Amino acid sequence: MTTISKDAKLVILINVFTVEPTNQQRLVGLLARATNTSVRHAPGFISSTLHRSLDGTKVTMYAQWRNVEDYEAMRRNPAPAPYLQEALTIAKFEPGMYEVVDSFQPDSKDS
Amino acid sequence: MTTISKDAKLVILINVFTVEPTNQQRLVGLLARATNTSVRHAPGFISSTLHRSLDGTKVTMYAQWRNVEDYEAMRRNPAPAPYLQEALTIAKFEPGMYEVVDSFQPDSKDS
Repeated sequence: MTTISKDAKLVILINVFTVEPTNQQRLVGLLARATNTSVRHAPGFISSTLHRSLDGTKVTMYAQWRNVEDYEAMRRNPAPAPYLQEALTIAKFEPGMYEVVDSFQPDSKDS
Repeated sequence: MTTISKDAKLVILINVFTVEPTNQQRLVGLLARATNTSVRHAPGFISSTLHRSLDGTKVTMYAQWRNVEDYEAMRRNPAPAPYLQEALTIAKFEPGMYEVVDSFQPDSKDS
């Protein structure tokens, strides 16, 4: 379980991978293995959530990090690289580094 | 505050808008207004979170809906359309409809 809040001042990575639908499940497996074997053990990693698009053409990782420096230190670590390199043979990668600016709830639970 | 969980079986919309950095703040305002005045009042809306990229070139909305039908019913409602039409004069829109397949926590808090 992951919580999103604008008060947490975390860095958010939203990385969108575009893939042929026949390769979507394989890509999910590669990204899960990269995360389980390496990324989630890195200092400053808070959480990540892996999403598959219902049309089969995308896989998106939504990740929270304590700060930009911790994320960049992880990217310099070669351990997850084999899985990510294999992922990039079957997928295009569009990264994004964000901060939360606002969040919205239904009528009666304004944040 | 928003909670992400693969057990919730929600539909996730991750909509990435690409924008000139000089228009990023205006785009954030338009998407916030569309959500506040209309989208968050729709049946089946669970939550949404608005993100701005640190490089100024993207704005991404991460939204949770009860199911696809509720989301599509909202999209047929003309109320948020003026804000969204104005947004599309300054931004490119890449939509994605997802389900959560896995989530990851640091070492000692495996989910």
